[in-house]
Amino acid sequence: MPTYRLDLAYDGSGFHGYAAQPDVRTVQGALEAALFRHTGPVETFVAGRTDKGVHAAGQVVSFAAEEIDQDHLIKSLNRQLAPEIAVFGIAEVAVDFNARFSATARRYVYGILNRTAPDPFLARTTWHHPERLVVADMALAAARFVGEHDFTAFCRKAEGRSAVRRVMHATWVRNGHGLVFDVDATSFCHQMVRSMVAVCVDVGRGRLRPKDVESIMEARDRSAGHGVAPPHGLTLRSVSYEPQ
Amino acid sequence: MPTYRLDLAYDGSGFHGYAAQPDVRTVQGALEAALFRHTGPVETFVAGRTDKGVHAAGQVVSFAAEEIDQDHLIKSLNRQLAPEIAVFGIAEVAVDFNARFSATARRYVYGILNRTAPDPFLARTTWHHPERLVVADMALAAARFVGEHDFTAFCRKAEGRSAVRRVMHATWVRNGHGLVFDVDATSFCHQMVRSMVAVCVDVGRGRLRPKDVESIMEARDRSAGHGVAPPHGLTLRSVSYEPQ
Repeated sequence: MPTYRLDLAYDGSGFHGYAAQPDVRTVQGALEAALFRHTGPVETFVAGRTDKGVHAAGQVVSFAAEEIDQDHLIKSLNRQLAPEIAVFGIAEVAVDFNARFSATARRYVYGILNRTAPDPFLARTTWHHPERLVVADMALAAARFVGEHDFTAFCRKAEGRSAVRRVMHATWVRNGHGLVFDVDATSFCHQMVRSMVAVCVDVGRGRLRPKDVESIMEARDRSAGHGVAPPHGLTLRSVSYEPQ
Repeated sequence: MPTYRLDLAYDGSGFHGYAAQPDVRTVQGALEAALFRHTGPVETFVAGRTDKGVHAAGQVVSFAAEEIDQDHLIKSLNRQLAPEIAVFGIAEVAVDFNARFSATARRYVYGILNRTAPDPFLARTTWHHPERLVVADMALAAARFVGEHDFTAFCRKAEGRSAVRRVMHATWVRNGHGLVFDVDATSFCHQMVRSMVAVCVDVGRGRLRPKDVESIMEARDRSAGHGVAPPHGLTLRSVSYEPQ
């Protein structure tokens, strides 16, 4: 049976996260309802199980199914799922491809609007933080995430599981009133990006120094409570795989 | 009594246009309800009375009122109106300033997503047109709008009123899968931009030639029926005034 890869984007505002749950609207629930009309019930795998309110610009899903008409399927999925979910790619891939287990890296971006007035066009996808943030210090803080570290202090529900992750890249850039955190890692534990953002924002406000990131990581204490940034600023940007 | 100018942006998706109407939610209705808590009832003037579903990134409103605390007012308005409406500027202006009658030009942009798959992040502000459009021909068509012309063929409800308008600038630009129409004029008659877009899209699809714009304008026949593009792609970008 061939394996297929779907590339999709979604506005997470109206969903209780990616993963299917009873009685609430989820991306997986909506996607599978649309997909199964063509394939019947199949098991789907996803690169990043985004939380409630989190968006994706480059999510990847895979499944094995009987031979399908790809053009017909993508049109049907978009007709059923637009405007909140868009499938912008479909391809037959190697039979052992798995969107979750074959992924070598995930890249997330987090957007902050840093000015007094809100912006209606960014309200759904950007955290509005009116107080002035010093982005240079936030970039210094983010640089300390790079490398292999135990991110227990930044992980929710990490009980018993290793929180060691390798971060390849973590930057903050200011563009006018917008601040963007851009981070990629082999994988992320639960709420890791939003916890990183919360600590960086405390640095940007002057409540923490950039080097405090080191002691926070070393303490491995989740309960130290640096909080998490709100979900709607977060977007799964892309997922990397070995070239086939 | 001092005159004040407000600069505001709004996502028009949830409003029945700018102008107040009984029993429906309008931008003017929401803004005045919030403003009048501070000023009491005052007459407000607006640069562009946008239609239902049309957005604004740089709308201007003026009113005369007793001396007000500007910092307090802008914070209060944003608290009451976010996230759909944002007031990003307030200033005391010359007493004879009028957001509508002092305006020397209005600039609108219209966005089209021109690819097969929709995009959830552009769905509220961009017309999704899957069929390939030839932007070079659309730009040639738009160039014919520039100058002083009778735009009766592009105006709804222009009965008895002159539809002569001066267009200073009208371009189409492609940026990846996005097409943007950028037009400014002294003023626009009703549905003029969306009618221009509909004709340009017919040119982009090959149904009309760029030079057909001339005969359409010359015919001055609204009923010829080239249609109007949907409202959600349209945004009032900015309004020009004489330097004070």
